[in-house]
Amino acid sequence: MGRGIKVVALAGGVGGAKLADGLAQVLPPEQITIIVNTADDFTHLGLKISPDLDTVCYTLAGLANPETGWGRRDETWNVFQALQRLGMADWFHLGDSDLATHISRTTWLGEGRKLSEVTDELCRIWGVRVRVLPMSDDSIQTWVYTNEGDLVFQEYFVHRQCQPMVKGFRFEGSESAKPAPGVLEAIDTCDAVVICPSNPWVSIDPILSIVGIKQAIVNHLVVAISPIIGDKTIKGPAAKMFSELGIQPSALAVAQHYLGLINTIFIDQSDIGMKEEVESLGVRTFLTNILMYDPLERGRLAREVLEYILSLRGA
Amino acid sequence: MGRGIKVVALAGGVGGAKLADGLAQVLPPEQITIIVNTADDFTHLGLKISPDLDTVCYTLAGLANPETGWGRRDETWNVFQALQRLGMADWFHLGDSDLATHISRTTWLGEGRKLSEVTDELCRIWGVRVRVLPMSDDSIQTWVYTNEGDLVFQEYFVHRQCQPMVKGFRFEGSESAKPAPGVLEAIDTCDAVVICPSNPWVSIDPILSIVGIKQAIVNHLVVAISPIIGDKTIKGPAAKMFSELGIQPSALAVAQHYLGLINTIFIDQSDIGMKEEVESLGVRTFLTNILMYDPLERGRLAREVLEYILSLRGA
Repeated sequence: MGRGIKVVALAGGVGGAKLADGLAQVLPPEQITIIVNTADDFTHLGLKISPDLDTVCYTLAGLANPETGWGRRDETWNVFQALQRLGMADWFHLGDSDLATHISRTTWLGEGRKLSEVTDELCRIWGVRVRVLPMSDDSIQTWVYTNEGDLVFQEYFVHRQCQPMVKGFRFEGSESAKPAPGVLEAIDTCDAVVICPSNPWVSIDPILSIVGIKQAIVNHLVVAISPIIGDKTIKGPAAKMFSELGIQPSALAVAQHYLGLINTIFIDQSDIGMKEEVESLGVRTFLTNILMYDPLERGRLAREVLEYILSLRGA
Repeated sequence: MGRGIKVVALAGGVGGAKLADGLAQVLPPEQITIIVNTADDFTHLGLKISPDLDTVCYTLAGLANPETGWGRRDETWNVFQALQRLGMADWFHLGDSDLATHISRTTWLGEGRKLSEVTDELCRIWGVRVRVLPMSDDSIQTWVYTNEGDLVFQEYFVHRQCQPMVKGFRFEGSESAKPAPGVLEAIDTCDAVVICPSNPWVSIDPILSIVGIKQAIVNHLVVAISPIIGDKTIKGPAAKMFSELGIQPSALAVAQHYLGLINTIFIDQSDIGMKEEVESLGVRTFLTNILMYDPLERGRLAREVLEYILSLRGA
């Protein structure tokens, strides 16, 4: 389906990876570009780790662990256990084959290659034919302002397990960062931008914080998929963040968050009660089952998104 | 045995590790200091690797692989195999638990700790009570001049498997390097220095190249154990190096190499034929079985070395 149609998806980790996988089921790979958040990237035990890129690429390659939402399937933990015996920090779990990814990325970056080149090389090796781009080759770092001080993202997210109360965010480096090669071109030449059901605050906003990306997107048809059903996120701290920032978490709050940027939001059919209020903002709604609980459902939701885009295009 | 006697051993990899292990069998740990060559150290895939320190420490901790002479026993290779699948350089084998050592060392050095502190920490965790010191906390790098150009040591030794013909050596950085904390004190307060049956050219000479170490040793009783039996090394390229440098490899050549530094050389009883010629150099000989083919033999040889030292001390 969707002959010739080109879609750009903005993605964070799990939700983004699932929809990217769905898109790859229904469109030829050359018609899809996934732009991935890299503001969660960090250096841990000397290794350059790109959690969202890895989740997206592992998922597209069929290598992802279906249980955890991070890391690899059929993983072993020999190095991690040996590191624990040496008393090393063990709050960030590192499987053996995942470690090989980080060691390779660190080596290649150390040789002067760009993150986009490294990502391209990994995708080539893993047979990922969809184009996956980091949002930037420059370093951008999400800081979470909390009641327990400012925490760098992985410290908040993994080490502190999102316990501290959120007061705000900062994307350090985003003022001077450039979009990675291909990002603006992909947006300029696409038919629609899909904002995946990723965390608006810490997965999508960092992408939008890069000078040029938001401006490139704003002239396109932009469809968001709500990461919130009822007042809960499917995974991760998005709902908790809305609450702590004084906003009732809901698909409506997501629509308000993206106001001025999106044309349409896909909301869960159980949220039919807020359809009118969302549309009163000037944002169209599309009601469906937005939960992707298995790989078939990813394809089903992606197909609905594409059909919706095609229907507007035809109109 | 050897109440109160203090011994310093200069060691490279396997031969040094075996004799260090023998000494640890016959002397209380606080009477032994092992000074280890670090000019083989290198950075590989972003990891700081200290092959000789690891071989010595793994051996003393009972963690060494008895078959290979490097790496750990009961090792797994999951990361290494995953790295191979990513097309990474695989000429230097990295086992999973060995990798944890390198990741920890790299992390700790990155935090500003010294190699001697890192070694101390690893020994503490592994229960190694013998004092193991790197020769220096400063970077020294062995370059091997060959008929195929100048090669950094691991490139020559592991990657090229000692194939190129050796023309000479250089220990880059040794002019400005300082002995690691404790090295000179250990030598100054010891009763004898034992030069382990390690490679004279690339294991022991780098240690002796550091300003201050040779001068500190020269006033002591120094006993070397020949790494050559007949015209062959027990392990490694020492004999090949002697030949390529135009010297007939033998225990005599080893004695000549260390002339002016050693009082006595332990040579294999099969080399009885060169006893007179060695002694004509002014170097005493002690004939015994110098091959340490099992852990018991390490203790046996170490005991003979100690008894010899004690006999001179008593005299």
